[in-house]
Amino acid sequence: MTKKVKIAIDAMGGDHGVDATIPGAAKALDKDGDLHFLFYGDEAKIRPVLSKYPKLKASSETIHTDHAVRGDEKPAAALRTGRQSSMRLAINSVSNNEADCIVSSGNTGALMAMAKMVLKTLPNIRRPAIASVLPSKTGRTVMLDLGANLSCDSEVLIQFALMGAVYARVSENKKNPSVGLLNVGSEDMKGHEELRAAHGVLSRVQFPGSFKGFVEGNDIPMGTVDVVVTDGFTGNIALKTAEGVGKLTEFYLKETFKSSLLATLGGVLAMPALKKMKQKVDPRFYNGGMFLGLDGVCLKSHGSSDDVGFCSAIIVAANL
Amino acid sequence: MTKKVKIAIDAMGGDHGVDATIPGAAKALDKDGDLHFLFYGDEAKIRPVLSKYPKLKASSETIHTDHAVRGDEKPAAALRTGRQSSMRLAINSVSNNEADCIVSSGNTGALMAMAKMVLKTLPNIRRPAIASVLPSKTGRTVMLDLGANLSCDSEVLIQFALMGAVYARVSENKKNPSVGLLNVGSEDMKGHEELRAAHGVLSRVQFPGSFKGFVEGNDIPMGTVDVVVTDGFTGNIALKTAEGVGKLTEFYLKETFKSSLLATLGGVLAMPALKKMKQKVDPRFYNGGMFLGLDGVCLKSHGSSDDVGFCSAIIVAANL
Repeated sequence: MTKKVKIAIDAMGGDHGVDATIPGAAKALDKDGDLHFLFYGDEAKIRPVLSKYPKLKASSETIHTDHAVRGDEKPAAALRTGRQSSMRLAINSVSNNEADCIVSSGNTGALMAMAKMVLKTLPNIRRPAIASVLPSKTGRTVMLDLGANLSCDSEVLIQFALMGAVYARVSENKKNPSVGLLNVGSEDMKGHEELRAAHGVLSRVQFPGSFKGFVEGNDIPMGTVDVVVTDGFTGNIALKTAEGVGKLTEFYLKETFKSSLLATLGGVLAMPALKKMKQKVDPRFYNGGMFLGLDGVCLKSHGSSDDVGFCSAIIVAANL
Repeated sequence: MTKKVKIAIDAMGGDHGVDATIPGAAKALDKDGDLHFLFYGDEAKIRPVLSKYPKLKASSETIHTDHAVRGDEKPAAALRTGRQSSMRLAINSVSNNEADCIVSSGNTGALMAMAKMVLKTLPNIRRPAIASVLPSKTGRTVMLDLGANLSCDSEVLIQFALMGAVYARVSENKKNPSVGLLNVGSEDMKGHEELRAAHGVLSRVQFPGSFKGFVEGNDIPMGTVDVVVTDGFTGNIALKTAEGVGKLTEFYLKETFKSSLLATLGGVLAMPALKKMKQKVDPRFYNGGMFLGLDGVCLKSHGSSDDVGFCSAIIVAANL
C-alpha cells in the first residue's frame, strides 16, 4: 500500500479563495488518489464548496480558523498578527509533520516570511528563492528567483545556481543540468558587479550541473540552458512579460482566424492541433512556484489561479 | 520641393555590416524618395554592394575610413581609439550639421558613449536612454530604457518618464500619453526604493502625460499604458524575453500546422491571414532604438538586423 501524501492547503488564499482551492484539490485527487488534504480556513466557507465533492470530503480534514492574511498585507504585519491565519496554520502543519507539504495562493511576501520563520532555511542557505518551470523550445526550463528577493548579491546568486541545479535534477530528472546567469549580454564584462562576481565563482567551482555563463532574455523561451538564475525583481518581470506575450499572441490568433472566411475555415480544421498547442503553453499547467532553500516543501500558486492552476500546483508539491 | 533628409549611416556596424546597411538603405529609399545617405566605412567593402543599387548610389556619398568599432570593444576603449571609426565619423556629421540623424547597428555601449560625448545631452538631462516601440494589444507601447543604463536612481527614472511621454507625443501622436513604472506589483509599497521614490514624485508633478503608477511585466504586451519606464537592465531583459517568446510561438505554430493532415490544410487556408499577423509582430518592423535625451537624433538598430530591420530603423530616424 502506498503511503498517502498529506497536503496542507491554505484554503482562503488567492483571488478566488475556496472557489479555486477546493475544486483544485478535487481535480488533483482525481489525478492522484493517494492524496490526503488538510484544509485550513473558514469552515463556513469551506463546507458548502467541499460538499460538492464527496470523494474529496472523504479524503480531507478541515481545520477551522477565522483569520486569513490579506493580499495587500505587509509581510512583517502578517508575521505579527497572522499567527492564527489559515496560511500560518497550514505552514505549521508541515513543521509539526502533520503534513508533507503546503500549497497557498495567498500573499507571496507573507507566505515567504512565514515559511522562512517556521520551516527555517537549509544549512548554509542565506535566502530562499521561488523557482518555477517554464515551457521552452527544448522542453522545460527552470527559472529562479521569481520574486522572493528583489535584489541579490553574488553569494545569493551563487546559492540560487546550486539550488536551481539540484531542483532540475530532482524535479526535471536532468542528470547534469546546464545553468546560466541572466544578463544583458553574453560577454564576461557585461552587467552588474554582483553578476560578474557570481560568474567568476561559478566558472571555477564544482557543483551539481554545468555553468554555461551569461544568458539573455531570449534564452529563457529558447531553452538554451536548463536553469536560468536571476534576482527576484528581474525574474518576476521576465516571467510576467512572457505570460503577457503569450496572452497577446492568443488574442492575435483569435483575431486572425476571424479576419476572413478562408482563415475561419482554416482555423476550424486546425482547431484540434491548435488546442494541443495551447495546452502546451497554458501558464496554468506551469503553475506552482517552489520555495527552494527551506527545510520543508512550500509551494506558491499564482494569486489569480483558478481550480486548474491550483491543481497543477498541488501536483507539483505532491511529487517532490 | 521637399528638403532632403540627410542620414548618416555607420555602414560597418552590426553582425552583417555592409550586407545589411546598404541594402537596408536601398529599401528605405524605395519607401521615401526624399532621403539622402552619407555612408561611413571601408569604401572597398561599400562599393561592390552599393553598385547593385544605382538609385541609392545616386542619392548617397561614401566617406572612407579604415577603422570600425568592434562589437566586443569596451565603450571607454572605443572612445579613446575610435576617433576615425565609421561610427564616430557618422556621429560627428550630425554635430557638424552635415547630417540630420545617424543610424548604426554597431556596439551599443560605444555608440551611446560617443553620441553622448559628441552630441551632448539636452539641458537638465542627466543620462540618455534607449527607447523603442513594441507591439501591444492596444496598438503600440513605448518602452525605455532598453539598455543604456544598467541601474537608475529615482531622478533618472523620473527624467525617463518625462522623455518617454514627450517621445510618445511626437512619434506616436498621443496627446496625453499614459506612463507607468515597471515593478513587481502594482501596490505603492512594492519594489526597490528608487522606484517608490520616483512613484512619489511622478504622482505629484505636472508633466506632458498622465502617470498611472506601477505596472507589471504583462502590462507591456497588454498595452495598459502608452509608455513603460524602467532601468536599462530590466528593460533589456524584458524586451529580449518578449522577442524570445515570439520566436517560440512561431516555432510552435509551425509544428502545429505540420502535426496532422487537417492542421496542414487549415494552415494553408489561413496562411494569408497568418502572414499578416506575423508582419504585425515581426520584431524587424519595430527595429530602431532611439537615443532619447541627446541634442541630436541617434538611432541604434539591432546588431543582428538584416536589411529589412535596418530599413525600419532608417525610416524611424527619418521621421523624427
